[in-house]
Amino acid sequence: MSTIDLNADLGEGFGRWRLTDDEQLLSVVTSANVACGFHAGDAATMRRVCDLAAERGVRIGAQVSYRDLAGFGRRAMDVPPYELASEVAYQIGALEVFTRAAGARVAYVKPHGALYNRVVHDEEQAGAVVEGVRLADAALPVLGLPGSRLLDVAAKAGLPVVTEAFADRAYTDEGTLVPRGRDGAVITDPTAVVERSVTLARSGVVTSRSGRDIPVRARSLCLHGDTPGAVDLARLVRARLEESGIRVEAFV
Amino acid sequence: MSTIDLNADLGEGFGRWRLTDDEQLLSVVTSANVACGFHAGDAATMRRVCDLAAERGVRIGAQVSYRDLAGFGRRAMDVPPYELASEVAYQIGALEVFTRAAGARVAYVKPHGALYNRVVHDEEQAGAVVEGVRLADAALPVLGLPGSRLLDVAAKAGLPVVTEAFADRAYTDEGTLVPRGRDGAVITDPTAVVERSVTLARSGVVTSRSGRDIPVRARSLCLHGDTPGAVDLARLVRARLEESGIRVEAFV
Amino acid sequence: MSTIDLNADLGEGFGRWRLTDDEQLLSVVTSANVACGFHAGDAATMRRVCDLAAERGVRIGAQVSYRDLAGFGRRAMDVPPYELASEVAYQIGALEVFTRAAGARVAYVKPHGALYNRVVHDEEQAGAVVEGVRLADAALPVLGLPGSRLLDVAAKAGLPVVTEAFADRAYTDEGTLVPRGRDGAVITDPTAVVERSVTLARSGVVTSRSGRDIPVRARSLCLHGDTPGAVDLARLVRARLEESGIRVEAFV
Amino acid sequence: MSTIDLNADLGEGFGRWRLTDDEQLLSVVTSANVACGFHAGDAATMRRVCDLAAERGVRIGAQVSYRDLAGFGRRAMDVPPYELASEVAYQIGALEVFTRAAGARVAYVKPHGALYNRVVHDEEQAGAVVEGVRLADAALPVLGLPGSRLLDVAAKAGLPVVTEAFADRAYTDEGTLVPRGRDGAVITDPTAVVERSVTLARSGVVTSRSGRDIPVRARSLCLHGDTPGAVDLARLVRARLEESGIRVEAFV
Repeated sequence: MSTIDLNADLGEGFGRWRLTDDEQLLSVVTSANVACGFHAGDAATMRRVCDLAAERGVRIGAQVSYRDLAGFGRRAMDVPPYELASEVAYQIGALEVFTRAAGARVAYVKPHGALYNRVVHDEEQAGAVVEGVRLADAALPVLGLPGSRLLDVAAKAGLPVVTEAFADRAYTDEGTLVPRGRDGAVITDPTAVVERSVTLARSGVVTSRSGRDIPVRARSLCLHGDTPGAVDLARLVRARLEESGIRVEAFV
Repeated sequence: MSTIDLNADLGEGFGRWRLTDDEQLLSVVTSANVACGFHAGDAATMRRVCDLAAERGVRIGAQVSYRDLAGFGRRAMDVPPYELASEVAYQIGALEVFTRAAGARVAYVKPHGALYNRVVHDEEQAGAVVEGVRLADAALPVLGLPGSRLLDVAAKAGLPVVTEAFADRAYTDEGTLVPRGRDGAVITDPTAVVERSVTLARSGVVTSRSGRDIPVRARSLCLHGDTPGAVDLARLVRARLEESGIRVEAFV
Repeated sequence: MSTIDLNADLGEGFGRWRLTDDEQLLSVVTSANVACGFHAGDAATMRRVCDLAAERGVRIGAQVSYRDLAGFGRRAMDVPPYELASEVAYQIGALEVFTRAAGARVAYVKPHGALYNRVVHDEEQAGAVVEGVRLADAALPVLGLPGSRLLDVAAKAGLPVVTEAFADRAYTDEGTLVPRGRDGAVITDPTAVVERSVTLARSGVVTSRSGRDIPVRARSLCLHGDTPGAVDLARLVRARLEESGIRVEAFV
Repeated sequence: MSTIDLNADLGEGFGRWRLTDDEQLLSVVTSANVACGFHAGDAATMRRVCDLAAERGVRIGAQVSYRDLAGFGRRAMDVPPYELASEVAYQIGALEVFTRAAGARVAYVKPHGALYNRVVHDEEQAGAVVEGVRLADAALPVLGLPGSRLLDVAAKAGLPVVTEAFADRAYTDEGTLVPRGRDGAVITDPTAVVERSVTLARSGVVTSRSGRDIPVRARSLCLHGDTPGAVDLARLVRARLEESGIRVEAFV
């Protein structure tokens, strides 16, 4: 029997602003990537999300980012390694306190936005993120893209690594994501997203843009919660996975 | 034999800016109030200060503040209790990660600036600070002014409390500080500061502005590091305390 | 024939976050209080709102605030007068550049949130706001509450002052607003809000909580755009004002 | 008779922190690049520097930056053009208000730090900076490196352009700066800096690292004020320029 984790970004509001429907998402996902204050997520929001996630038994991960509230962490930045590692550790520590108070713990780390994309190929920044994770906890799993520099460096440093896939993103024949902005990069048809989710979870395969079946190792599927209808789609994905006999379960 | 702790604010730079001579201060004090990013103290600075303090065996405390970099935490703010408690916990958690990586721990919490002054009398904010400390660690000592609401509320909540005194500040006959801005509020004569330090440590007494001897319980003396000559004065205070047979030692 | 201005807060998003439906609100109001980056409103949002407002012939005002993105400017702050005046001027200047580029100008200034409430009674901060406005332009109108210290100080300093009223807020017999948080402080029944708007515009009178008719001088009515149904209600208010023969027109 | 402008970065403190000795620098330079709040420079500091510069007859320029206080604007960022242009305009507008209040005006624009380096070669960001300048004022001079994309794009857009040189930086044979971090990139010997200043101002020539005389068109020399001894060196440079019969004068 196959097992899959469902992760999504949560707590991505800031102060007066809200982005994701945290309450609803927490009834769907098994892993919550909680924003830690650098691209989103003030302290009060973090605390509320952690309390809610712990109550629902959803695993909590630190969604770490460049320091860039104005750009929502989506603008690549040339941050020197010592600074970047320190900022990653800072964010994990800040989140820890709320998980602990909620009777839970930080179960993994996942970079956000421009940092996520950068550490796919940037060895130096990948190293800094890994250093930051290890400052916080030398046994903390890192969630990322299969084949990314981040997961390679993390594995070499002795950290557990967990791969994820995106059912709503187009893949190339090489198994990489078609960059956002390109035609067809994002799959918006709910039926297609649901089917791809089931195939990914059951067979570890995704159909590339050119129609080939591409192997994609993924212990987790990333769902999105910040667009209209996103929560409904997430719910549908989970229902169909379970109907297909796939166990939906956190990876840690 | 009397024992006294010497505490000072450290790591109060931000990014490119420096304020205190951390390296020098760490050779004088026994407790370092490390800024946690809300009024000063970026992640890289916090890490560096924690590494250095741990190396020197100086205790590390979380110097928690209102979220106000532009005002250096010196502007009173009406922060709702849930937010304030969350922000206090966030700062402690962020610091923890660096103390842990350095082989140390957060040994106490001390509010900074306008928050320090506010919780002397404001029951609601004092309660929020205590709640924030307890979110992080229900056994974490709180350092503050004797007679303050903060220490009362903390003690009632079961937290260890530690009192401090200021050798360079004038006291009223009631044992409270003469507010900054008033004539003679700050004592600038080094000889006077040194003598008051010794008297405070040995006899728990300070001479008030009107010339009376006022009992001031204080397990710690607060030294300052952000003015010219401050480090030299701090060094002098420590030397004279030790010459006077007073043990200079952290309170935890 | 009576004339009334309709003002509302716009551009209160920040980066990735949105709050108000600017596009829709600009088809209703005659004056747009544009957030200037201190409680909300990044540069790109300010530019977009100014372009849109100018295109629609809606007047643009600077909605100035304490520097507090995390608290959306809703937390009172003890900002020293020189700093506060400078921050007010800074915000006006930043907005000016976008109004000018759009072929418009900053037509008035209105404080936001906690600053708005503070300068109702705080002489020092009222003076600082007025000083900030005058740094930018010594002939710039100030929009505020009748009877507030702000308008008094502004008038004494030679600035034009414009009064506003709130159709969705309860008034005391003294003509002041019932503080938020008190029972019945906010009027949520759309029919009542519409009727109060017409009465305020036509007769300069509002019914107080105890049922008395209270005179409230107001050249402008403040509408809200940040709650569900707010834009529909605003539209309804405008329609009924016009049906009642009241001219809806900017005050400058 | 040759004429040269001397420019330096000023007002680069933030809140409690100071970096440059503005008072002293303003007695040496003819053009002050005033930080506008994005990498340094809060509103009160900007106001004070503008008042002082106007009093001394020193020209005021807007030193515009990426939005990055934590990194002092020294970390390259991938900011989309619309955002970047808006942020540049915002900063210029904010400064304008203080220059106007001081009886002066924003006389030019100079990018800071990582943005300065990026627009040497990045066409898109250079275009965004120029767009931002033009939003503020279509006749505002831009100060930058000869041969940079910034000055090319600015000139094509009809903006006046002004070139600058660095007497304390090593040049390649191609007339570009040896990147910081390379051996010998920064010239620290005061005598050498003074001599290079005079040669640059008189003959428009600088000796490259390999010993060749390289033509460097420069209407302005950039001096530094953020290192120990910097102000003394700046003073020396100015004195020697004047002794050498070179007129030290702002370019606008």
